[in-house]
Formats: sequence, C-alpha cells, structure tokens
Amino acid sequence: MKISINELAQLLKGKVEGDGTQQVHTVCKIEEGFAGALSFLANTKYEEYIYTTQASAVLVNKEFAPSKLVQTTLIRVDNAYEAFTYLLEKFNSVSQSLKGIEANSFVEPSAVLGKDVYLGAFSYVSKNVEIGDYSKVYPQVFLGADVKIGKNCIIYPGVKIYHGCELGDNCIIHAGTIIGSDGFGFAPLADRSYKKIPQTGNVVIENNVEIGANCAIDRATMGTTRIEEGAKLDNLIQIAHNVVVGKHTVMAGQSGIAGSTKLGPYCVVGGQVAIAGHITIADGNQFGGQSGVLAGIKESNGKWFGSPAFEVKDYLRATAIFRKLPELQKRLNALENELKQLKGE
Amino acid sequence: MKISINELAQLLKGKVEGDGTQQVHTVCKIEEGFAGALSFLANTKYEEYIYTTQASAVLVNKEFAPSKLVQTTLIRVDNAYEAFTYLLEKFNSVSQSLKGIEANSFVEPSAVLGKDVYLGAFSYVSKNVEIGDYSKVYPQVFLGADVKIGKNCIIYPGVKIYHGCELGDNCIIHAGTIIGSDGFGFAPLADRSYKKIPQTGNVVIENNVEIGANCAIDRATMGTTRIEEGAKLDNLIQIAHNVVVGKHTVMAGQSGIAGSTKLGPYCVVGGQVAIAGHITIADGNQFGGQSGVLAGIKESNGKWFGSPAFEVKDYLRATAIFRKLPELQKRLNALENELKQLKGE
Amino acid sequence: MKISINELAQLLKGKVEGDGTQQVHTVCKIEEGFAGALSFLANTKYEEYIYTTQASAVLVNKEFAPSKLVQTTLIRVDNAYEAFTYLLEKFNSVSQSLKGIEANSFVEPSAVLGKDVYLGAFSYVSKNVEIGDYSKVYPQVFLGADVKIGKNCIIYPGVKIYHGCELGDNCIIHAGTIIGSDGFGFAPLADRSYKKIPQTGNVVIENNVEIGANCAIDRATMGTTRIEEGAKLDNLIQIAHNVVVGKHTVMAGQSGIAGSTKLGPYCVVGGQVAIAGHITIADGNQFGGQSGVLAGIKESNGKWFGSPAFEVKDYLRATAIFRKLPELQKRLNALENELKQLKGE
Repeated sequence: MKISINELAQLLKGKVEGDGTQQVHTVCKIEEGFAGALSFLANTKYEEYIYTTQASAVLVNKEFAPSKLVQTTLIRVDNAYEAFTYLLEKFNSVSQSLKGIEANSFVEPSAVLGKDVYLGAFSYVSKNVEIGDYSKVYPQVFLGADVKIGKNCIIYPGVKIYHGCELGDNCIIHAGTIIGSDGFGFAPLADRSYKKIPQTGNVVIENNVEIGANCAIDRATMGTTRIEEGAKLDNLIQIAHNVVVGKHTVMAGQSGIAGSTKLGPYCVVGGQVAIAGHITIADGNQFGGQSGVLAGIKESNGKWFGSPAFEVKDYLRATAIFRKLPELQKRLNALENELKQLKGE
Repeated sequence: MKISINELAQLLKGKVEGDGTQQVHTVCKIEEGFAGALSFLANTKYEEYIYTTQASAVLVNKEFAPSKLVQTTLIRVDNAYEAFTYLLEKFNSVSQSLKGIEANSFVEPSAVLGKDVYLGAFSYVSKNVEIGDYSKVYPQVFLGADVKIGKNCIIYPGVKIYHGCELGDNCIIHAGTIIGSDGFGFAPLADRSYKKIPQTGNVVIENNVEIGANCAIDRATMGTTRIEEGAKLDNLIQIAHNVVVGKHTVMAGQSGIAGSTKLGPYCVVGGQVAIAGHITIADGNQFGGQSGVLAGIKESNGKWFGSPAFEVKDYLRATAIFRKLPELQKRLNALENELKQLKGE
Repeated sequence: MKISINELAQLLKGKVEGDGTQQVHTVCKIEEGFAGALSFLANTKYEEYIYTTQASAVLVNKEFAPSKLVQTTLIRVDNAYEAFTYLLEKFNSVSQSLKGIEANSFVEPSAVLGKDVYLGAFSYVSKNVEIGDYSKVYPQVFLGADVKIGKNCIIYPGVKIYHGCELGDNCIIHAGTIIGSDGFGFAPLADRSYKKIPQTGNVVIENNVEIGANCAIDRATMGTTRIEEGAKLDNLIQIAHNVVVGKHTVMAGQSGIAGSTKLGPYCVVGGQVAIAGHITIADGNQFGGQSGVLAGIKESNGKWFGSPAFEVKDYLRATAIFRKLPELQKRLNALENELKQLKGE
C-alpha cells in the first residue's frame, strides 16, 4: 500500500513540516531510514538520528524542537509512538482482509463455519468442527473432528489441531504448530518394551493466546492440557500432557514443560528453559534462559537462573566464582603446603 | 460415543452398585471427576476421592470395601486398572476407524496401497511408494519416491517422509515430523565458504516405534539413520545423520543426537539432552534433563546428569557445593588471613 | 538408477580391475559394503576394509598398491575421493529432475514463475509471488503474498513462507521450516496482560543458504531479519526478529538466537546453543554445544563453551574442578580443623 505524507497527516490529525506530497509504502526504525519509509521519534535518546535519517517522513511529538537542521519531512502529532503503532495496526489489518472459502479446501458437511470466515485451499475441516465469526484459517491447516475455534482467530498455514481440541476468541497460532498430539505416555512391560497409554484428553487454549511457529502442545492423558487466557508462547516450544500454563504468562523460544506441571499466571520463561514434570510454580516467577527447573516454587515473583535453577542473585555470585575455580584450587594447594611447613617447624 | 453404565458393566463382566442407567461419554481422573465421565480406583492412595468424586461411575476392584458412604455408581471388576485401559483402547479405536482414499489426495500410479488403507485429502504419494495393510495416512502428508510404510501404521497430518525412507509395522508418527531430510554435511573450502556433501542414505524406522510431533530425523550421508524396534521419541527431537537409536530406548522432548552416534537399547534420555556426535553409548544408560553427553559410555545401566554429564550421584553432590561457592570462597579468604597472622606471630 | 561398473569407469575415465559387468545401484562406506553398492578408498587408515568389503566395486587412487588379495572390483582413478563426490552429485541430480506445475497446486494469476520451475501439488502461491528459473517447490508449500524466490532453489514439502519474505539463488529449505512468522513482541499493559506489537518487517535469505527441517525464522518488527550468503542452518533452529546471521556461518541443530542480535560471519555454533538478544558477535567465533552466550564479543575467532559461556580452555579447566568440589570442600574442612588445633596449641 502507498499513501502520501499529506494523507497520513490527515489520518492522524497531524501537521506536516516539509514536502508532504511524497509517497511512503513502509515503516522503519529511525536509525535504519530509507526513501519511501515512515519512521517516528519518541525517545529523545534517538534524537541525533533525525538529522541524518533517510526516511521520507518522521512522526514527532508536537512539542519537538530540533536543535539542528532537519532534512526529512516531519509530521507533528500529540503522541508520536501511539500514532505510529496505530498506523502499524492499520497497515497490517489491510493485509489481513481475507474472507471466504477457497475452492480446494475440504469441509465435512457437519462442520459449522461462522460469519466471514476465511478458509484457505488444501485445509481440512473434519466432522463437527466449529469455526467462529471472522476467524481466518490459512491454507494447509488440519482441524480434527470436534475441534472448536472461537471468533477472530488467525490460524496460519500448516497448523494441525487434533480432534477434540478447543481454542477461544482472538487466538493466533503460527505456522507449523501442532496442537493435541498424543502425550508421551508409555507403561514399561516385563520384557523392557513399552506399551502405549491411550491419550484420551484434549487441549484447551483460552482467549487472546498467541502461539509461535512449530510448537508442539500435547493432549492430556485424561482431562485437559490448558493454555490460559492471554498467555504468549514463542516458537519451537514443547508443552507436555496435562500441563497448565497460567494466564498472561510468556515463554520464549525452545522452552519446554514436562507432564502435569502447573505453571502459574504472570510468569516469564526465558529461551531454552526446561521445567520438570509434576510440579507447581506460583505466579509471577521469572526464569533466565537455559534454566532447568527441578522443583516446585511456592512463593510468588521470584527470579531464578541456572540448571538446576536457584535465585538469580545467588546463581550469578556462584557462577562468577565457578570461573575462578582453578585459582581457588591453587590457593587451597598453597594453604595446605604452608600449613605443612608450619607444622613441620 | 455414549454408553450406559449397565452396558459398560456387561462389556467388562462387572457388577453395578448404584444407578446403572446413566450415560457416560468420556473418562477422567478420580480427583477431577465430573458428570458424564467414568473413572477408576486402583491405588488405595486415592481412596479419599471416591467419597467426593463427581464422576458418574468408578471402576473398582471387586474386593473394594468403602469406609464411608459412596455416592457415585460403582462397577466392580477383577482388576480396575486393566479394565480401564481396556476401555481407553476400545474408545480410541472407535475414533480411528478411518478407511479409504479421499478424493483430493495425489497417488502416483506406481504406488501400491494395501488392504483397508486410509489416505487423507491433500496427501501426496510419490512413485513406487508402498503402504501396508490397515495403515492410516492422514491429510497433508508427503511420501517421497520409494518410501515404504509397514502395516497398521498411523501417519498423522503434515508428516513429510523424504524419498527412500522405510517404516516397519505398527509405527505412529505424529503431526509435523520430518523424516529423511538431508544430514548437516558440508566441506569447508579454501575461501571459508562451504560445499554441500550429498546425503544419499536413508532413514529406517523399525517396528513399533512412536515418534512425537515436529521432530526432525535426517537421512544418512551414506547408509542408514536407524530408529530400532520399539523406541519411543517425544516431540521436537533432532536425530542427525547416521545415528542409531537402540531398541526400546525412550527420548523426552527437545533432546538431540549429533551425527554418527550409536545410542544403545533400553536407554532413557531426559528432555533437552544433547548427545555429541561419533560416540557409542551402551545399553540401559539414563540421562537427566538438559544433560550434555560429550563422551562415549562403555558400561551398561549408568545414570548421568549435568553438562558435561557425569554420574548422577557425583553430579548432585558437586552441584550442591556449587551453590555454596561464595561461602567456600569466604572461608578460604579467612584461612589465608589467619595463616598470615599465624606466620606473622 | 542402475549402471554397470564398466560404464562408471568410462564416465570417470578410470581403469577397471576385476569384473566390470556387474551393476551397482547405490553407494556405501567401505566398512559397510554390500552387493550392488559402490564405495571408495581415499584414506589409507581404512585400507584393511578393502580386503573384506562386500561392496561390488571400490574407487581407488591409481597408484594404490594392495598388500593382500582384493576380491572386489577396483576402479582406478586420479583422485578417488573427488571422483566419488562427483558421482554422488550426479546421482542426486538425476533424482531431482522435477519440472512443471502439478495439477492440484494453487497459483494466483499475478504470480510469476520462471523457466522450468517445479511446483508440487497442494502448494499455494499467493499474489505477486516470483519464483526464479529452475527452482523446485515441492508439494504442500505455502508462499505468502509478494514472496520472492531466486533461481535454482529447492523448497522441500510443507515449508511455509509468510508474505513479503525473499530468498536468493541456490537456496535449499528443508521440510517443515517456517520463514517470516511474527516476531515475539508484546508490550506489557497496566493490568499485566500484553498487547501485540505488529511485526511489519520481513525475512531476507541471501544466496547459497541451506536451512534444515522444522526451523522457525521470524520476520522483523520493522526492517529485516537476515540470513547472509552461504550460511548453513541445521534442524529445529530458532531465529528471532531482527537477527542477522553472518555469511558462511554454520549453526547446529536446536540452537537459537534471541531478538536483534548480530552474529558475525564465519562463526560456528554448536547444537542447543542459546545466544541472548541485542548483542553483537564478531566474525569467526565458535561456540561449544549447549553454550549460553549472554554478552557481545568484540574479538574475532574466539572459542567459547559453557552456560554462561567463557573461553573454552578456561571453561574446561573450571568444569574439571567442578567435578572435584566435594573433595575440595573436604580439604577446606580439614585445613580449618588443623588451623584450629594449631591455634589451640
């Protein structure tokens, strides 16, 4: 989409300073400006860039007073950052005006599709599936029998949702993510082989959840694996059977939670963190990247690091000394020798 | 599926105590019981729940003697746990009675499909593929040229199997898993760029193997990457070229094995474990979560933990002291001072 | 493909010793030889195997002088290793002579497909997509609006490339990989929930890049997430928004890079390595498996290990002492006791 700087200013009720007839077609950071792009200046830390940026236009707060000559076109608005994010959303929503059922999709007659649903080609909608109003299901998605998708969801290409799983409203699931695969449950037999334990539960994903690309969220053995309201999961995350991820908890890429663990609300989990099975973690706990969480946590709002994880301040102190272990060993050797000499005297 | 408690009891040759006319449509844990669900009590540790459970019916051992008033309906059977798993499998197999070739699939004329095979829409079956009797290939699966799938396999939606790979009988591959992608092999050139080494081998998966969602199992450079009989792999697992995973070995989520390593039979690998390339690990070894295995292991049945991994008892002892390193350092400082004073005297 | 040993020798301008009329249909390592396979002997370390190998034929350097009776057929060439890799590439390219648009694919009329492009069934080509000459797009691939693919690329089954992303020439993307999913960007709100920050940038993958199976490479918030020329990524790798991976850098399986980090050219990243966000790493640095990289690195060509990572030599020394911490603690206790006794005297 192309739009002139003057039109943008009108949309934002802003005031143009400079050439408003130029067209912009994308956005950029002010330090990476280029012709045809719109940027913004909200934090004075970045002010220096406004005098050199190649961006065609920059949104600034109306009270901005330049200290040098500005060559780019300015649009003065009440709040530059808010105006910018408003535009980002507007531009994005334009590209997502998909609607209708594409010809090469497969829909069982018993499925119920809401108003203005988009269903991409090569997507497969099984028996008794329900898709809520305005939801978008991209191409090559699989929805198993009895799957329920709420309103205003976006299911990106290639997502696979096994039978019986349910999503709330306003959920976003990125490409390649698998929801409802069998939990990893096997009973050891006398001959040291394993017998599969049927996984008969499901996955429930509540409202306003976003899940990244190529994750795997297993169905419960019995009952439900649950991702609570507003939780945000990054890419390549593993959620085992019967796990609960609390509301508004965020998990960074490649982290994983083993079976039956309850992770509280408002937690923050770094990348490549592993959380053991069958434990409960209270609300608001934070875990540094690559932490290994072996035990439950009863207190709220702790900060943890390391594998096995303990309190971040203690961990950083211990790890600083870990680096000096060769020196410590030398000092210990020296002490032993001195003491020997002392005793020999 | 809905069934009355009386019908269930008949199926299990059990005896009903209470209202047998109610319908149940699912199963649950006894502590999470709800109306319409069937549960079981096998372990007396959970006995307290039978007096409060909301489950419509509970399977109990025939000799069970309640110590309080029971409000749910009981079905007395010889072995409550076995009867329950029998029902789980029965319910599950009902939902998996898929058969036939769906209209929108693509099958090369030279492919050979066995008796009662299911092939879902948008699946792609290349030249000379063979699919054994009763196997189910869900929608959106890709089977490259010359792929062989045994009998009674389940290939979930979106699995991609590259040319020349082979699966035995009774294998289950969960959604999004990739089998037979190129091994990671590149030869460094004089200009510091890399030249691809062609990966001409394949992957062989033996009988009774289950592989989770979104795994990646690379083909061999030459020869075969092999997952032996009865091995069980969780989600998001990486198996590099020319690896052998021994029979009845289990690997938890997000673990990985580098190239040419032979992991023995009956091993147990925790989540996010990394096993280095070109090593051999004897049978029955176990690795704690996030372990890093750098060297081969000749002895059977060891237990290992840590990165780099060593024996679990020693690791736990060392890691307990690691936490106290700041204290140890203080004690060392104090000793040095005392000794100085002593020598100064 | 089947070919006689005599024909192979002719192709390689080599000289046959033994029965040249046999057919070979595959290749193998000399120590794993079997009938119908061709192998090679380049490194004298493996000479013993040539006297026992079951391979039908073995390529050897023309000056090779056997010390015992050889039973397999030899083909003498100028350079056995080079001749072998030449054949590997030749055999491989034969199997990749795919061409043409398969009937069940979906192509928007505004898309532009180059000369001799292959497009597999159930692939989806959105508006304004461009695919360069000789590129192969396997079945079940999704190419979003405005995606550009260069010449001679191979996009394996099930790859999903979001709108606006670009690939150079000679790129290989393995099955299941996702390119251009939204970066993980959320602004915390007063009520402790999160608001999505629109991710409006793209991903650019330069020439000669290979990316393994089931990776996830996020689009930039603004601007570009970039994989530079000749970089090689293994399976299940996470690349966050606005990351740059330098040219001819290699990353092993399950490693990940957090947002906005610039990883220099010619780096080597081991498996399951995590690199923190917003840091810059100079060229030629190498990281051992499972390392955790928390801080930027200004010097070139360092070697790093551990989590948190520090110089490999120092790390190995420290970790060796870590194992002996229980012993160190005992020695410290003993010293304290001796000193007490000494002072008590």
